Amino acid sequence: MSERKSSGFMLKQRAFLKLYLISIMEREKLYGLQILETLRDEFKEFGYRPNSSEIYKSLHELVDDGIFLRYEKLKEGTKLQKVVLYKFNDYEKAKLYKKQLKMEIDRCTGLLNKALKDNFS
Amino acid sequence: MSERKSSGFMLKQRAFLKLYLISIMEREKLYGLQILETLRDEFKEFGYRPNSSEIYKSLHELVDDGIFLRYEKLKEGTKLQKVVLYKFNDYEKAKLYKKQLKMEIDRCTGLLNKALKDNFS
Repeated sequence: MSERKSSGFMLKQRAFLKLYLISIMEREKLYGLQILETLRDEFKEFGYRPNSSEIYKSLHELVDDGIFLRYEKLKEGTKLQKVVLYKFNDYEKAKLYKKQLKMEIDRCTGLLNKALKDNFS
Repeated sequence: MSERKSSGFMLKQRAFLKLYLISIMEREKLYGLQILETLRDEFKEFGYRPNSSEIYKSLHELVDDGIFLRYEKLKEGTKLQKVVLYKFNDYEKAKLYKKQLKMEIDRCTGLLNKALKDNFS
């Protein structure tokens, strides 16, 4: 996985989105088009609005990481229209990624809690 | 305050450091050189290592924002060596900034807690 050099401040948006994509995939098939609206709705109350290019880059990274597999299927009832779908390629790797992200989220929560304590008490 | 365009994911490292610089200033005089080591020690256990250029940019932004004032003083016991110091220029503005950051940290904590709930339960 290629990550930009980091001083280790907060978790990266891309990693956060990859985590969500994996979890969505665990529950249902992934249609590229729906995801954007679903995630935007989810995060709306937190003032976070992921843009489409971040989500597509996250999807592509999951494919590059060997976690997802991209495939095409004929649209139901048609003979020419194709839809792009994704499925798990390596589910063990997906579970490992989630485990890493759990640690990363805990680390960031700890850092934010420390900032609250240090600056507002 | 000039901020880069953002989708509103996590709080920015620069803002986080500015918050700490304001709080340090509330407790003691600010010597540019000491801050880096102090903050690195503080965050070490969280795997976060701010680099010097981020800290200096944060300091300069606080000056540009009119919150800090930079001044020079002769080093004690010398007639030529100067030290660079900072003091509050507008303390009300500093308190307002802290209030904003408190809200931003709460928002980010909420987003991280949501991610824990959504992906790990």
